[in-house]
Amino acid sequence: MALLDYKIATIGSHSALQILKGAKDEGFSTIVICIKGREKPYKMYNVADEIITIKDYNEFPKIQDTLLKKKAIIIPHASFITYMGHADVEKFNVPYYGNKKILKYEEDRDLERKWLKNSGLTLPKIFKSPKDIDRSVIVKFHGAKGGKGYFIAKNERDFNKKIKFHPNEKNYVIQEYILGVHMYIHYFHSSLTNEIEIMGFDKRYESNVDSLGRISSRDQLALPAEKVDPSYVIVGNMPLVVRESYLPRIIEMGENVVKQSKKMVPRGLFGPFCLETVMTPEEEISVFEISARIVAGTNPYTHGSPYTWLKYDKPMSTGRRIALEIKNAIRKNQLNKVLG
Amino acid sequence: MALLDYKIATIGSHSALQILKGAKDEGFSTIVICIKGREKPYKMYNVADEIITIKDYNEFPKIQDTLLKKKAIIIPHASFITYMGHADVEKFNVPYYGNKKILKYEEDRDLERKWLKNSGLTLPKIFKSPKDIDRSVIVKFHGAKGGKGYFIAKNERDFNKKIKFHPNEKNYVIQEYILGVHMYIHYFHSSLTNEIEIMGFDKRYESNVDSLGRISSRDQLALPAEKVDPSYVIVGNMPLVVRESYLPRIIEMGENVVKQSKKMVPRGLFGPFCLETVMTPEEEISVFEISARIVAGTNPYTHGSPYTWLKYDKPMSTGRRIALEIKNAIRKNQLNKVLG
Amino acid sequence: MALLDYKIATIGSHSALQILKGAKDEGFSTIVICIKGREKPYKMYNVADEIITIKDYNEFPKIQDTLLKKKAIIIPHASFITYMGHADVEKFNVPYYGNKKILKYEEDRDLERKWLKNSGLTLPKIFKSPKDIDRSVIVKFHGAKGGKGYFIAKNERDFNKKIKFHPNEKNYVIQEYILGVHMYIHYFHSSLTNEIEIMGFDKRYESNVDSLGRISSRDQLALPAEKVDPSYVIVGNMPLVVRESYLPRIIEMGENVVKQSKKMVPRGLFGPFCLETVMTPEEEISVFEISARIVAGTNPYTHGSPYTWLKYDKPMSTGRRIALEIKNAIRKNQLNKVLG
Repeated sequence: MALLDYKIATIGSHSALQILKGAKDEGFSTIVICIKGREKPYKMYNVADEIITIKDYNEFPKIQDTLLKKKAIIIPHASFITYMGHADVEKFNVPYYGNKKILKYEEDRDLERKWLKNSGLTLPKIFKSPKDIDRSVIVKFHGAKGGKGYFIAKNERDFNKKIKFHPNEKNYVIQEYILGVHMYIHYFHSSLTNEIEIMGFDKRYESNVDSLGRISSRDQLALPAEKVDPSYVIVGNMPLVVRESYLPRIIEMGENVVKQSKKMVPRGLFGPFCLETVMTPEEEISVFEISARIVAGTNPYTHGSPYTWLKYDKPMSTGRRIALEIKNAIRKNQLNKVLG
Repeated sequence: MALLDYKIATIGSHSALQILKGAKDEGFSTIVICIKGREKPYKMYNVADEIITIKDYNEFPKIQDTLLKKKAIIIPHASFITYMGHADVEKFNVPYYGNKKILKYEEDRDLERKWLKNSGLTLPKIFKSPKDIDRSVIVKFHGAKGGKGYFIAKNERDFNKKIKFHPNEKNYVIQEYILGVHMYIHYFHSSLTNEIEIMGFDKRYESNVDSLGRISSRDQLALPAEKVDPSYVIVGNMPLVVRESYLPRIIEMGENVVKQSKKMVPRGLFGPFCLETVMTPEEEISVFEISARIVAGTNPYTHGSPYTWLKYDKPMSTGRRIALEIKNAIRKNQLNKVLG
Repeated sequence: MALLDYKIATIGSHSALQILKGAKDEGFSTIVICIKGREKPYKMYNVADEIITIKDYNEFPKIQDTLLKKKAIIIPHASFITYMGHADVEKFNVPYYGNKKILKYEEDRDLERKWLKNSGLTLPKIFKSPKDIDRSVIVKFHGAKGGKGYFIAKNERDFNKKIKFHPNEKNYVIQEYILGVHMYIHYFHSSLTNEIEIMGFDKRYESNVDSLGRISSRDQLALPAEKVDPSYVIVGNMPLVVRESYLPRIIEMGENVVKQSKKMVPRGLFGPFCLETVMTPEEEISVFEISARIVAGTNPYTHGSPYTWLKYDKPMSTGRRIALEIKNAIRKNQLNKVLG
């Protein structure tokens, strides 16, 4: 089948701009599925050959047949997974880039932790009960609040005092508080060549916590506490490079995560993924989460990163790397190796 | 008239490097007007075909005839406006990119506020009198101090206590203090096609406030207060990308500002402009200022931004975008649509 | 001798990726010398034509003959100097890019200070004895701890109290504490043309100090002091541009440093170097260190910086600039002007 018979499709949000632009650069036609009223960015940058508008994401399953007929391959990103829901993604029958079987390991906190631990990574300690708290901790809420309300407690008593301000929150995790700088590591593992690449690094830009330090301590203490309570809502990303001597270790971390994933599910993890880490002054790399797909932290690099430019003679975003992988699979007649 | 008959000229400061480089990339000859002793950057990077040296910016009107003879088109930037003064810019008769009539709406705080409000944007509340303060505020001084001496007050009493340290300052504004992260949005509106583009985003790098957080609270409290008083002097800019799901809203904000400007003055705002915003954890985008011309926050992108690379197959800085617009106007014989 | 007879070699760490990639882009074959087990980054990005593995850096002198036979030119970076030791670098007889005679001026704190002062730069005051402390100071330890344990003291008494927590540290410097934002200025001085270029700017990403501000003052005070003590371990770098009006001054600073170096040693300083500065709200640029070679702060710019793109029509990293310089020297038959 000719290359141009396939189309690359994704949902208009998150990292769709680089996915679509990358697909076009690799010679694919592109389709973006947008909530009505959210098409403008894709028109403005002219990255979508076709825009399919839906009223609500729950309409998404209804357009499956259309996508199938158009020979679309869906590139999933966080918004796609969130909007569709884990279960529906599995049932979805449009060709899908990536391994759907890995999704539940990312979604289930316990499975995820086990995966990372078995990969030999260093993880922050989790305390099942406030009674076990034996060091400074950060308490993270899950679900709708999206980064709001997290707090730091220095011991059980402090925890008990502060949790009272969140009477309706039952779903939280008590995590060892590791003081270091955040770094998000972007990998790409090819299921065609079994090779791993580092695509780049970023630092999130979070509101309001990344502005907190701009208020002097005297002012912070003078202002009402609720005014300066940190929240961690991601509003952007900033480019970053890592100390080069850390790279061998960082590469191995990625390799081990992939190796371990193959023990968990057939074919294991492939495509883009991200380790969310804290680097401590002791030069430990503490991993607090994995994202088993493209993350928005690769968006600073729509025209290639300081790392991808080392390897490629063209601008290679993570979005384009996905399209390149699919193109290679088509050429080798191995689409089954890259689809869900 | 042949394209190369026109020359692009600007003052050697602010964002002149990208303006001149961009103009050369579009095929124009370039002229930079420099204060004596400040020519080196333009020589070093070889972006100026001609350097005109003046002793002082008030000599600028004197070289008008020279510029006219050379068929120069002036690209204004903040330093140009500041050095020339608003009134003199209006009288200036060298062809000028942009709408001079919009300048007073940028300069007059009340007109600016009205403009932004009528564009449907969210603005921080302004308190006319200290008596009205009903929440945390930041007090900003204007004029010569350029970012020094701003302070935060939590109520009227706190304001009255702190304003005493600034006995000579009469020109200040009492603004609602919004805790969120700063983001500067760079737009370009074409008066030829009536289309808007997002050129990119940046975060300012301000001294000393962007270093304040690197001092522990214990140390801040131990140091003398005047040692750790924040100041907001811009010394640089850092690249940034925004969460993709915010883009539809951000595009509309720009469109509304342009639409509103057309009700204010003939032709309205066109060319590059910038909304200076704070993004809150509640995902509100609060606008505290507009710059109706190129801003230095586009300087990280002399070789294109993660956004302009989506649309163009060449490195498109904001400076180059201006030159491209002028070139298109010349070709369409519509220079009157882009000149002041 | 034909260009391709020479090979560019460096140690696999620090800034080797851009050095090797840049050399290849200029047409050289490349060699990377790696500690066993640290080869992966150089394979992954395919920047090394040859990898020489050693068990330990003290084996490095043993491979001199091999490198000589291969017509290798060594590009030194910080890790190279650190691993080899200053004395051994001088004895090393493989062709070496840069002026070895300048090394001791960089290594000896007093010589370095004299150099910078005689270049007319502003330096933070150094206090020889705690008794002399008359303002806020930062106390920096040298050697193995690499950025850990630095502390701020507001006066002699405060110093005496805090130094007790470091009973084993004898090697420290008491430096005036200058509150401003850090900026690392990357220069390149050509010994062929006697011209200086600014290659770009960066901001270091240091653990944990760049995360400290993300903890509210209330939390910092609640946590144990040792938990929130700042440390300054460099884990990465972030791109940055400087306010354009500072450039003339910044260029002159670099020129003066080079001019002064010529009074110190024959030929003086050439190639890449870095001034490590703090920019204050008063717009003073305070220089606290010089690195007389390529620094890792140029790593964000493997594909060129916002500054090098102004001058070159190709991606010019500092690593590539070195290779270009060597190529030009070969072509002009002036290798003696660029080698150690």
